[in-house]
Amino acid sequence: MPKYAIGIDFGTESGRALLVDVADGREVATYVHSYANGVIDERLPADAGGVRLEPDWALQDPNDYIEVFKRAVPAVLKASGVSPADVIGLGIDFTACTMLPTVADGTPLCFLPQYRGRPHAWVKLWKHHAAQPEANKLNEIARQRGDAFLDRYGGKISSEWFVPKAWQILDEDPEIYAAADRLIEASDWVIWQLTGRESRNLTTAGYKGIWSKHDGFPPDDFFRALAPGLEHLVEDKLSREISELGAKAGGLTAEAARWTGLLPGTAVAIANVDAHVAVPASTVVEPGRMVIIMGTSNCHMVLGTEEHIVPGMCGYVEDGIIPGFFGYEAGQSCVGDHFAWFTENCVPAAYEREAQARGISVHQLLEEKAGQLKPGESGLLALDWWNGNRSVLVDVDLTGLLIGATLLTKPEEIYRALIEATAYGTRIIIETFQANGVPIHQIVATGGLPDRNKLLMQIYADVSGRPIVVAGTHQGGGLGSAMHGAVAAGAAAGGYDSIVEAAQHMAALRDESYTPNPDAKAVYDQLFAEYVTLHDYFGRGANDVMKRLKLLKAQARS
Amino acid sequence: MPKYAIGIDFGTESGRALLVDVADGREVATYVHSYANGVIDERLPADAGGVRLEPDWALQDPNDYIEVFKRAVPAVLKASGVSPADVIGLGIDFTACTMLPTVADGTPLCFLPQYRGRPHAWVKLWKHHAAQPEANKLNEIARQRGDAFLDRYGGKISSEWFVPKAWQILDEDPEIYAAADRLIEASDWVIWQLTGRESRNLTTAGYKGIWSKHDGFPPDDFFRALAPGLEHLVEDKLSREISELGAKAGGLTAEAARWTGLLPGTAVAIANVDAHVAVPASTVVEPGRMVIIMGTSNCHMVLGTEEHIVPGMCGYVEDGIIPGFFGYEAGQSCVGDHFAWFTENCVPAAYEREAQARGISVHQLLEEKAGQLKPGESGLLALDWWNGNRSVLVDVDLTGLLIGATLLTKPEEIYRALIEATAYGTRIIIETFQANGVPIHQIVATGGLPDRNKLLMQIYADVSGRPIVVAGTHQGGGLGSAMHGAVAAGAAAGGYDSIVEAAQHMAALRDESYTPNPDAKAVYDQLFAEYVTLHDYFGRGANDVMKRLKLLKAQARS
Repeated sequence: MPKYAIGIDFGTESGRALLVDVADGREVATYVHSYANGVIDERLPADAGGVRLEPDWALQDPNDYIEVFKRAVPAVLKASGVSPADVIGLGIDFTACTMLPTVADGTPLCFLPQYRGRPHAWVKLWKHHAAQPEANKLNEIARQRGDAFLDRYGGKISSEWFVPKAWQILDEDPEIYAAADRLIEASDWVIWQLTGRESRNLTTAGYKGIWSKHDGFPPDDFFRALAPGLEHLVEDKLSREISELGAKAGGLTAEAARWTGLLPGTAVAIANVDAHVAVPASTVVEPGRMVIIMGTSNCHMVLGTEEHIVPGMCGYVEDGIIPGFFGYEAGQSCVGDHFAWFTENCVPAAYEREAQARGISVHQLLEEKAGQLKPGESGLLALDWWNGNRSVLVDVDLTGLLIGATLLTKPEEIYRALIEATAYGTRIIIETFQANGVPIHQIVATGGLPDRNKLLMQIYADVSGRPIVVAGTHQGGGLGSAMHGAVAAGAAAGGYDSIVEAAQHMAALRDESYTPNPDAKAVYDQLFAEYVTLHDYFGRGANDVMKRLKLLKAQARS
Repeated sequence: MPKYAIGIDFGTESGRALLVDVADGREVATYVHSYANGVIDERLPADAGGVRLEPDWALQDPNDYIEVFKRAVPAVLKASGVSPADVIGLGIDFTACTMLPTVADGTPLCFLPQYRGRPHAWVKLWKHHAAQPEANKLNEIARQRGDAFLDRYGGKISSEWFVPKAWQILDEDPEIYAAADRLIEASDWVIWQLTGRESRNLTTAGYKGIWSKHDGFPPDDFFRALAPGLEHLVEDKLSREISELGAKAGGLTAEAARWTGLLPGTAVAIANVDAHVAVPASTVVEPGRMVIIMGTSNCHMVLGTEEHIVPGMCGYVEDGIIPGFFGYEAGQSCVGDHFAWFTENCVPAAYEREAQARGISVHQLLEEKAGQLKPGESGLLALDWWNGNRSVLVDVDLTGLLIGATLLTKPEEIYRALIEATAYGTRIIIETFQANGVPIHQIVATGGLPDRNKLLMQIYADVSGRPIVVAGTHQGGGLGSAMHGAVAAGAAAGGYDSIVEAAQHMAALRDESYTPNPDAKAVYDQLFAEYVTLHDYFGRGANDVMKRLKLLKAQARS
């Protein structure tokens, strides 16, 4: 009898279940359930009193996650006709850091009537940016103390990560902080709901929680230096017991079996992160091949056999992606978002009419027109910092730049320059890794963009000088989670004993690749040299005009 | 009986006659005649064989100028009901350098059947740019020889000017060069047609012909250094007799009287240039007030009592605008053109729909939205070099730059940044004059933009820190020419004995002015400092990326 595993990918707006064949990774059925309360960024829900939120807040409702189990899992079982008895394991991946306060039994504080109207009782979504003051203070204090962990994270802890978010609760609503027996990643919380026992996964702990296999969490005196009330954060509200990826978190409880329609005791894997499970789902379980998840932003992941401090990267975690390797992560905060911004704000009506008349999207029209240009032909160069720079400058206050415009400059030329700029940004990341002992000889692309923009793919190959292959799955999160579910079940139950084995059987590449064109590469080498000069001039302190403009902007708006 | 004067403004596409009351400058009647052959930039007219022109060529048909006399002057006489006996004088202004070859009696070579099919026999319009190789060689040779005249022209002779154009004829069609008894500005040629005698005006000689009151033309050995055949250019085909502005060129011939309907003998002023006659027409006849003609490009003119070499300006000519003063000229090659480019290429369909729904133009909508922004609020800064930089860098290979873009940047913010950039460009020109001994305390605006864009006017006042007043006339060329006609007639005939007197009576300011807002000025001072840093970094050799991008572009297109 074939065996199956289910992966559940918890995104920003919805959760998706994917049921796959364990033998070959074939995707049998999928179902998406949108969160009823979505992203809560203006007011708390009406039944919580509708309190207005401050700017930069972004919350979620943990009940929406439970609903994904109740809706999406039964739906894929039904659609596939697969018997629950043949589903050997379940894995999940989640956005991160997305975290919440609970009482000791795991009940979210926002489920308790006395706290429901308090914003800090809810889930803080990854893009909740209101802990920036705490992040700034944390970085300042860590620098002054000389805490070594900063080096692992490119010199900066993000306001999106766990400790700033926890500290914001203490700062702004100490009663909630005190009432929170546990502060936990939402990924670990949903596993808790499935298995009835709390676990903490290595990936979020390592990438978002300032934890490492070697050093554990920062010492209590670091937390005390932040704020006296934080001193015992780890002891009181987190856990020093961190579980390896692919490990079994437990079996489904009777209640979770009722929610999902699966059998009680079905193996459940330790939680994981969306980007990170996409790596083995893209066939990458060894060093040398970089996975880039290309979408609104780019996330770059590569494995290394040794520990290297690579300046300006988001972080590296031992065993953080694939056990046995250091998992390095970098990012570009604005890729598809660039093109969406451009299409919405800068494409003239004549182009919209042409696209309509031809029954294609404006994006397709732009890609077609931009595809007729040769490298260098537009005379344009851009810095891809419309949303700051995540790697290697790690500076949210950098902004976008376009140079080379003339009265003959056309929209498709600007569009192509924006694509090229993101390719240069990726090349800087690749070259920084390479120069710091993490070699990269091939790119494995996954995410939404590889399907939608073949021009972009060829430009990335030409600019980076690396061949690009494309992951076979469109559901890197769901497939990667299902693979981890199969590993949690183990070979004895019809699954696998390691994620490497699982990848060999369940992951594949598409029959589609992009080879660098030497002529294009030669021109792009020259353009990239110009990009690097501008990147360093504006990004490394020679001229901080971008920051001063941002300051003037803030003053004008205040 | 009231007396009248007529000014004729020969533009790029048409000629306009303006009949004004000499007593107060009241504009009584105006008429525009479009040139039948317009700008000839693809093929010669069919009756000339339709020869295809090379890129960068721009010719005109001298017969079109005569048609303006035949159509536009009778039309204003008829419309006004003014008796020809009461028209005391006629003046003209012309684009420059716009030049043509003629035989000794003034007949254009292109009127002669044997030369009609030869492109070099026609009028070379100001924007004929095909003499760039000659201009480059000329500048190189003059630099090597250390010819001092280069300093008077910001270090560079433009390909638009007289000597490169004459040299191009010799280079490419020596037979036409040999057949040309005269090479003459079209402005002087039309005066010749009206009066029957050849004259050469000081303004075009000084600003476009490398002539100065003190040094005359460059010596013959300079021309010989360019090309042996050019050695006697001045002696053979030009004239060393240069006439002062406002002087009387002569009286209307009987034939010209028949063309125009005016009386034979009517006083005709020495020719002039469109921008330069606009200065007294804007009331400016003394130092300290800068006239800016604002349109597709900006032309800045200011008078000085002493001779100063101001680096990077288009040129200065003693007596070149108003007798008794040094007339300084600077320019920005792209102002209204910026906004037209932006509107055509970068304004989304949603804005076009909103403008249509409200019955306003896209420009008006953008101005309205941009007007709601405070200085600095967009966070954007631009370098206004979409069409190169005419002053003070004098570099056509510079290109446009925009910095500070984010995912929230709106079209109206970019639009405002472009306006601000042109204002910073004007401020650099003003400050360069000021720093080099040519003070400027007020701006007098004229041209098309002051009417169309009040936001721009206020921004110019705020950025420059100078009050701006607006010229009363919309026809700076026509009024200025009519004023020169009144001076040619003289006080005894009911006119004036000097252009200063004429300006006191005939020119006026509008009841409209713009005062710098100190708060806005304070913000703009900070933004201007950033502009200057980028201006110098990209414009003065620290990073020649703009030129290298242009080179790559040329290579990609070759």
